[in-house]
Amino acid sequence: MADNEFERRRQTVAAQLAERKLDGFLVSFSPNLRYLTGFTGSNGNLLLLPGEAILFTDPRYQIQAAQEVTCSVHISKGPLVPDIMAAVAKRRLRRIGYEPARMTCDTLDSLQGRLPMKSTLAPVNGWVEGLRMVKSADEIGLIRRSVETNSRAFESAVTKVRPGMKEQDLAAELEYRMRRLGAEKPSFETIVAGGARSALPHAQPTAARLATGQLVVVDMGALQDGYCSDMTRMLFLGTPTAKVKRAYRAVLEAQLAGVDAVRPGVSTARVDAAARNVLKAYGLAEAFVHSTGHGLGLEIHEPPRIGKKDKTKLAPGMAITIEPGVYIEGFGGIRIEDTVVVTETGCEILTPTPKTLRII
Amino acid sequence: MADNEFERRRQTVAAQLAERKLDGFLVSFSPNLRYLTGFTGSNGNLLLLPGEAILFTDPRYQIQAAQEVTCSVHISKGPLVPDIMAAVAKRRLRRIGYEPARMTCDTLDSLQGRLPMKSTLAPVNGWVEGLRMVKSADEIGLIRRSVETNSRAFESAVTKVRPGMKEQDLAAELEYRMRRLGAEKPSFETIVAGGARSALPHAQPTAARLATGQLVVVDMGALQDGYCSDMTRMLFLGTPTAKVKRAYRAVLEAQLAGVDAVRPGVSTARVDAAARNVLKAYGLAEAFVHSTGHGLGLEIHEPPRIGKKDKTKLAPGMAITIEPGVYIEGFGGIRIEDTVVVTETGCEILTPTPKTLRII
Repeated sequence: MADNEFERRRQTVAAQLAERKLDGFLVSFSPNLRYLTGFTGSNGNLLLLPGEAILFTDPRYQIQAAQEVTCSVHISKGPLVPDIMAAVAKRRLRRIGYEPARMTCDTLDSLQGRLPMKSTLAPVNGWVEGLRMVKSADEIGLIRRSVETNSRAFESAVTKVRPGMKEQDLAAELEYRMRRLGAEKPSFETIVAGGARSALPHAQPTAARLATGQLVVVDMGALQDGYCSDMTRMLFLGTPTAKVKRAYRAVLEAQLAGVDAVRPGVSTARVDAAARNVLKAYGLAEAFVHSTGHGLGLEIHEPPRIGKKDKTKLAPGMAITIEPGVYIEGFGGIRIEDTVVVTETGCEILTPTPKTLRII
Repeated sequence: MADNEFERRRQTVAAQLAERKLDGFLVSFSPNLRYLTGFTGSNGNLLLLPGEAILFTDPRYQIQAAQEVTCSVHISKGPLVPDIMAAVAKRRLRRIGYEPARMTCDTLDSLQGRLPMKSTLAPVNGWVEGLRMVKSADEIGLIRRSVETNSRAFESAVTKVRPGMKEQDLAAELEYRMRRLGAEKPSFETIVAGGARSALPHAQPTAARLATGQLVVVDMGALQDGYCSDMTRMLFLGTPTAKVKRAYRAVLEAQLAGVDAVRPGVSTARVDAAARNVLKAYGLAEAFVHSTGHGLGLEIHEPPRIGKKDKTKLAPGMAITIEPGVYIEGFGGIRIEDTVVVTETGCEILTPTPKTLRII
């Protein structure tokens, strides 16, 4: 990311302070902090003011902050709060925004306890998250690279799959390959689930062995240079039955319909409906127990949600997943998921992996 | 973990409600929730009352909660808070404890907004964390297994180390092997840092290649069945200089002195001083920039801290790390870390890996 991109983002936020009647904004949620500064340490707060931004962190991150950040850096020997409030007092700031959805009660108490007499703290939610929804070209480049790493790891690991392999060993192969391809880690806990367990949308890999006749769900993502990817593909060990083929076709058609609906100006609820209506036509509406997708970027789940009741209008630069699925107890689950980016005219599917049922 | 161990823990907490003047305790921090119920889902709250305990979670975890938990389970279709407060109202509970160090401001607001007229919320910190400090025999068994997985992964991966290997590729090898040995994931982000970068206590592995003449720090841990391990070992590529050998000897002596000081009744500050005094005698006091260790269990860092000012008295069953280190800019860093358990008469070092400088 170019240094001036962080500055541009901070300027965007600073320019909106006045209309929100704020003299400053204290950013404590780490993905928001990273978005506005590039700082990757685990302990930091950004005090964003008109024309000034100060990152508060501790001595462990002194060298790192100097390398990562272009705004002012203040190193606190003890807790950050007293130094933040000293800066507030010195500048006579009256109304300071904070992030109540991301801050613990104890931290807020500690801030309140040191707040200068005439200052107040004002809750602000979703501000930076709203800006983060539309990705820059640089960010799309990073998501694309994360998606490619993830797909390459999948292709390479899938050649190892045999009946008798443990779910957790396939997860190990997938994650190892991501790492070797440059990912920091998985962007969420890799899901590998065979047979009836594939019907659990949040199945963790176990010591259970994959067996002939099983559907296997693989839901995986990489975190690379801080950006997430997310993909689900299905394997079948042996020869799929007519019932499996029909359910697979239903989910694939639903996924394609969802992707087809993605374009600027369309509400996320309409994208969800496009996928959901296909499953309804197959009599599988009840088996689709979650929403069609979610935004991703610095977080694996971030706005917008692509669900029944979500009204966000899609805009060019949004990165989202499209991932309808059906879950039938005793039979198994089928989900197909791509990462896509909204373009000026529709969308680009970033995920290069074929969407045919992988027969092994 | 035997089911009745969770019940025993809940009874221990319930028995202390009266003396804390509480009618109930709302547990929301997930390691505390897991400790008291065995529940491993990502969304849950436990309302603990005298003679009753109710786990609130959402439909995604319905099957899982039924498998994992012996107390009552309430599945909420929407947010958990309204259902929790309905249970509070129905039972006419007056004073309910909550965990302000672990709860967001928004969640507290939402609880306050639905609180029955005559009820109040009372902040409670460190209660369950205090109980968690002393591990049961079952828990020590799980930590021991996590430590063994971690050490086996280290031994196996270290045979791959050659000059020219990327830091991140060694991290990938270590994590792959943990996984294959049954770990869910690393218990924290694996540190592999060569040469001058080893002087950063929180170095993340990069694409930098290990080179002859370098010190390499490897700080790694496994998470297995929810329990953490933590170990640091040093490699040297080539023939170490006299300066390296002397610094290594200093840290090793400090580590042994720290371990030697661990026994019931001793304050954690005394253990810290035992390690620190050795480094002082070597003229390296200034280079030891962190505390000597920390508790571990369901979290990688949990009480007690083994630092200069920490007054916790050690007790049998506490699991802690002993990890002095020295960090010299331009030269590099050396840290040696074991996981140990306090016994009736002293301590047991769980980590089986030899502590000699590994020459490659």
